[in-house]
Amino acid sequence: MSKAMSREEFQHKLLEKGQYYHIHHPFHKAMYSGQCTKQQIRMWVANRFYYQTSIPVKDAAILANCRDPDIRREWVQRILDHDGHKSLDCKWGGIEAWLRLAEAVGLDRQEVIEEKWVLPGVRFAVDAYVNFARRATWQEAACSSLTELFAPEIHQSRLDSWPEHYQWIDPEGLTYFRQRLSQARRDVQHGLAITLDHFKTAEQQARALNILQFKLDILWSLLDAISMAYEFERPPYVGITEEPVWHHALDR
Amino acid sequence: MSKAMSREEFQHKLLEKGQYYHIHHPFHKAMYSGQCTKQQIRMWVANRFYYQTSIPVKDAAILANCRDPDIRREWVQRILDHDGHKSLDCKWGGIEAWLRLAEAVGLDRQEVIEEKWVLPGVRFAVDAYVNFARRATWQEAACSSLTELFAPEIHQSRLDSWPEHYQWIDPEGLTYFRQRLSQARRDVQHGLAITLDHFKTAEQQARALNILQFKLDILWSLLDAISMAYEFERPPYVGITEEPVWHHALDR
Repeated sequence: MSKAMSREEFQHKLLEKGQYYHIHHPFHKAMYSGQCTKQQIRMWVANRFYYQTSIPVKDAAILANCRDPDIRREWVQRILDHDGHKSLDCKWGGIEAWLRLAEAVGLDRQEVIEEKWVLPGVRFAVDAYVNFARRATWQEAACSSLTELFAPEIHQSRLDSWPEHYQWIDPEGLTYFRQRLSQARRDVQHGLAITLDHFKTAEQQARALNILQFKLDILWSLLDAISMAYEFERPPYVGITEEPVWHHALDR
Repeated sequence: MSKAMSREEFQHKLLEKGQYYHIHHPFHKAMYSGQCTKQQIRMWVANRFYYQTSIPVKDAAILANCRDPDIRREWVQRILDHDGHKSLDCKWGGIEAWLRLAEAVGLDRQEVIEEKWVLPGVRFAVDAYVNFARRATWQEAACSSLTELFAPEIHQSRLDSWPEHYQWIDPEGLTYFRQRLSQARRDVQHGLAITLDHFKTAEQQARALNILQFKLDILWSLLDAISMAYEFERPPYVGITEEPVWHHALDR
């Protein structure tokens, strides 16, 4: 049996996973460097909306598995942030802010809400996250949220590069990224403390790293599905139909 | 409110979904016409193994949601077929037959069992099927199995084309496809009868068609993930690492 890592070593190993963050995905790299077409930006925004709307469902699953009111009281903030709430000191909830981004890139608000453009591969990757939170312990699910360690950098890179490269997008549309900069910094401290406290043995620490890898795999797969459809131009059922015949949400 | 389809019309609409079956996916078309490399065949077999091993888990979830012993007695046959059982009149269970196929294409049996090559996108698509069966009614989950309507043709096409195009594969390895030819024909009659009996109103029938589309989307996505990695040579974390650093199964 191998020896457990110290708290510092363990935190270092978690942070090292940042090398696999989707900020390094070819689609994201193209996005920052101004190489995305209007359609690619739009399809990224419309598909990523499914991730945004699934986050509070995932967080509710975590609350549903947690009998500690102190943890719930802190974690519930994430649901308020995404859905919006009178107690918030920001303009919009995260979902509404994302819809404003969608409008700013020229998407139809109603089509985005109806998930018209959500690719099956995106849905499966995002649903894997929600389903994990449903079945895992709340500590494991909290650990899976640790990609937030790397999120401020990705939001900042969008704020830095989009206004220059994509001048056709109203900068007001970028409010989501601005809001999340500070929220993600706050959230990750909570998730990190839970993880460092909970995963103690070498086996548990290895499992935590695997859980974080799982979440990194989700974010990477999401971009893979978008790349397949709109970079390699191989959307589902290519050559058979040009319509999005993909299934609709089954839980509605 | 629209009018329900007759039983015949409804069956016809279900069959029409065959146009979206993965037999028409570019990767599968390349496979039948002998254009796949050894690596592509191997990675398809290793990844598809995750689908094979998830099928009996999915079927167990259906049994777990069904309080009708008559239905269970018939449906349990699928678990026996995949896992193997002394009552079977065939040589191997489906999982063992697939492992023989894996060995025939030159894969290491243990690496396949350990899911070393299973891509995250494949895992997410397959898990979507299992998770649907966990949460849906048994009738809805039975409906999602109806891609079996189209399966005999795909197994036959492999039996017809592989021996000619891929002479390096021991034909004994193709036992799985031969066994499934008759099993799939039998299974689908049961699933189809359940679906035609259960989905009566126009809304229900539309939902059944959406559920079948969901399953078609899963099979298509599975091949998309394989294409991304081994046709477009963009496996996860391309340019960062050549090792498969993807997460391991979280439910072990």
